[in-house]
Amino acid sequence: AMYAATGLDVWTMMNQAAASVGAVNLGQGYMSFPPKDFIKRAAQEALADGVQHQYAPPRGRPRLLDEVAARFSGLLGRPIDPASEISVHAGANEALLSAFCAFLEPGKGQEAVLIEPAFDQYTPNVAMAGGTPVYVPLRVRTSKDPAREVISSDDWKLDPAELEAAITSKTRILVLNTPHNPVGKVFTRAELEEIGAIATRHNLLVIADEVYEHLTYGAEHVSIATLPGMWERTITVGSAGKLLGVTGWRVGWAVGPRELIQPTLAAHTRIVFTANTPLQEGVASALSAARDNGFVAVQRAEYQARRNRLMAIFDDVGLPYVAPDGAYYILANAGAVRIPDDYEFPPFIEERGRNFKLAYYFTKEFGVSGIPPAEFYSPAHKDIAGDYIRFAFCKTDEGLDECAQRLQKLK
Amino acid sequence: AMYAATGLDVWTMMNQAAASVGAVNLGQGYMSFPPKDFIKRAAQEALADGVQHQYAPPRGRPRLLDEVAARFSGLLGRPIDPASEISVHAGANEALLSAFCAFLEPGKGQEAVLIEPAFDQYTPNVAMAGGTPVYVPLRVRTSKDPAREVISSDDWKLDPAELEAAITSKTRILVLNTPHNPVGKVFTRAELEEIGAIATRHNLLVIADEVYEHLTYGAEHVSIATLPGMWERTITVGSAGKLLGVTGWRVGWAVGPRELIQPTLAAHTRIVFTANTPLQEGVASALSAARDNGFVAVQRAEYQARRNRLMAIFDDVGLPYVAPDGAYYILANAGAVRIPDDYEFPPFIEERGRNFKLAYYFTKEFGVSGIPPAEFYSPAHKDIAGDYIRFAFCKTDEGLDECAQRLQKLK
Ligand SMILES: CSCCC(=O)C(=O)O
Ligand SMILES: CSCCC(=O)C(=O)O
Repeated sequence: AMYAATGLDVWTMMNQAAASVGAVNLGQGYMSFPPKDFIKRAAQEALADGVQHQYAPPRGRPRLLDEVAARFSGLLGRPIDPASEISVHAGANEALLSAFCAFLEPGKGQEAVLIEPAFDQYTPNVAMAGGTPVYVPLRVRTSKDPAREVISSDDWKLDPAELEAAITSKTRILVLNTPHNPVGKVFTRAELEEIGAIATRHNLLVIADEVYEHLTYGAEHVSIATLPGMWERTITVGSAGKLLGVTGWRVGWAVGPRELIQPTLAAHTRIVFTANTPLQEGVASALSAARDNGFVAVQRAEYQARRNRLMAIFDDVGLPYVAPDGAYYILANAGAVRIPDDYEFPPFIEERGRNFKLAYYFTKEFGVSGIPPAEFYSPAHKDIAGDYIRFAFCKTDEGLDECAQRLQKLK
Repeated sequence: AMYAATGLDVWTMMNQAAASVGAVNLGQGYMSFPPKDFIKRAAQEALADGVQHQYAPPRGRPRLLDEVAARFSGLLGRPIDPASEISVHAGANEALLSAFCAFLEPGKGQEAVLIEPAFDQYTPNVAMAGGTPVYVPLRVRTSKDPAREVISSDDWKLDPAELEAAITSKTRILVLNTPHNPVGKVFTRAELEEIGAIATRHNLLVIADEVYEHLTYGAEHVSIATLPGMWERTITVGSAGKLLGVTGWRVGWAVGPRELIQPTLAAHTRIVFTANTPLQEGVASALSAARDNGFVAVQRAEYQARRNRLMAIFDDVGLPYVAPDGAYYILANAGAVRIPDDYEFPPFIEERGRNFKLAYYFTKEFGVSGIPPAEFYSPAHKDIAGDYIRFAFCKTDEGLDECAQRLQKLK
């Protein structure tokens, strides 16, 4: 029943709006280019084998566990035991849900703190697990006027006092997303130390959504689990879809100490039983190849070029934005766009307010679609979304060129 | 927290026990033979295309929706609208969980009736959705002695009075599994009419787990949704893993009226967002090919031969069993097996009681492993599992031959 009233999710809604006018779709964060050949081949080879079509162990296929251990032992700065410190999931989303289900007790009013803007699945996932989300927004701190000037994702700050004030005796979990979707903020070590100290003081479990860990542009990604004392209280979530550019494969993972992964795995086993086998094997082979062929560095450079290109397009047409240090989104400030007073919106947009109307109107008027970040805010904080629209740059050069052309109309 | 205490699932436990002695694994219901070439090829071809590596729409890839509509319009006896009457899931299990989440309201003590033996995921899935499972066991009604003689899966009967007595003002859902795992019972039209009348009288949603619909041996599979007045209150769940023999692909579906599928889809969108894209495409192509190449009929004949072979093996060694009308399991009665008084069981077996000990001992002693059906019963009804062990026959001829040899020891 909790879902009966749920309308269209924002992704389907904006994909449909984009398709309705043949917009360049910079909305949902999927790649509009194909994966590298070695990645495609890895999956095709996995399918050639007869054994690899049946259930994987709920924890994951052994080769994939080994590869995740190899990658994350580097990222997390410690050896990872593939047999007890990793669980493979049907996407990072299901890893997050499993962790919430494992550590929130329904009916007790237990709370999970979400930092806003918060990826739109966190709230329903916490609720499904029987928890109550509590929200602390990032605040823009800069001497610039974000409605007129380019600012940095690092100008979005979490106020430690505000975070601590949101924590009660019922708080169990803090969700931290770095690099951050949609802001592009890469939390600094100093910021993470402050957050970690607060989590420790209040004995919170930290669920670190680090699905964009491989995409930073100058800034250094720090996993909060690497800070002293934090490994024991942190579940780090990663995504093959994001790491390898194959969002449709639905393979993700959770990494952490045995005491945190075992309950997460138990929940996962009941939610989906196991992630799909052939693509787990494909990811394992691709990660193995990537250790030798420099893929992750090459990919980062490609994304950095796409980011620079989209920023240059926005500069050209005078659209102020938040320059991202990581991930693959740019928040652009469309406050200068005037919506005609008599413009008619469909009811599902009208009812969602100004930020949705702006993103919808922008799609229809300029043929370039993005996501309204209001969807990433709780009702009390939706105004913070202001006139921002989130545009994804995990897109082809042709797409970005076409976007450049279409946005000339803004001049 | 609800999962923290959960021990090993029965599948992992018995797979490990089997592996520890190199047993012929007739436990978990996965195929030990490769899928047909056209099925493998269908998935490989899907991977060749660049577009098919990104997120599918949460409802599913359009080609797959069309193919499911084609198959189920036959099964369900009415045209199915692929755009509103189907949702594709990350396996049938996730379809069931989504439906529970959609139609049970947490914190209200709402109940779902499960017919025992009940597939072991139903109970935690109902609980995750915030519901309370209520159990009604099938009862064996026969003049034969099941401990000594072969009986039929049709001797396992649901007592309509017992079912109706279990329904309260809080009951919302009735879960019906036909063909039935582990009994192999194929509910007759007359039985379904009685069940449907009860569901209608109490205004229950029926969740029909029909993942074995394609595997019947003489008996006719009837979808309860085809009975007069039942379409409106039934969600029918199916599985590509079972239908195509690729349990690791994690593609399933729910079919029903728009009013039931929309909330199920909304829950699914929050649970996993979407099922994996390449294998959805592979399933679509394979189902399309199967419409022309007679695959489903050929496969049924192959399974019937495997069933007959395993029954003949049991006959040969004097192991009484329940002859199944459908699915791919046989309950064999191992009551004649004597466990030495001083036999030492590991604690996770010891604590689960007699039926687990029997299945474990059988694995170690005879090198043939099955599943203890006690796992499919609530605590109050575990005794009904008696001395049965469930053996799966979705296995190679070589595996069954080896099983025949090893069981000679029983003579
Ligand atoms: C559930 S939408 C997935 C893509 C994504 O993470 C995003 O666009 O923010
Ligand atoms: C979650 S185990 C899946 C296989 C199966 O359905 C069974 O063996 O009963």
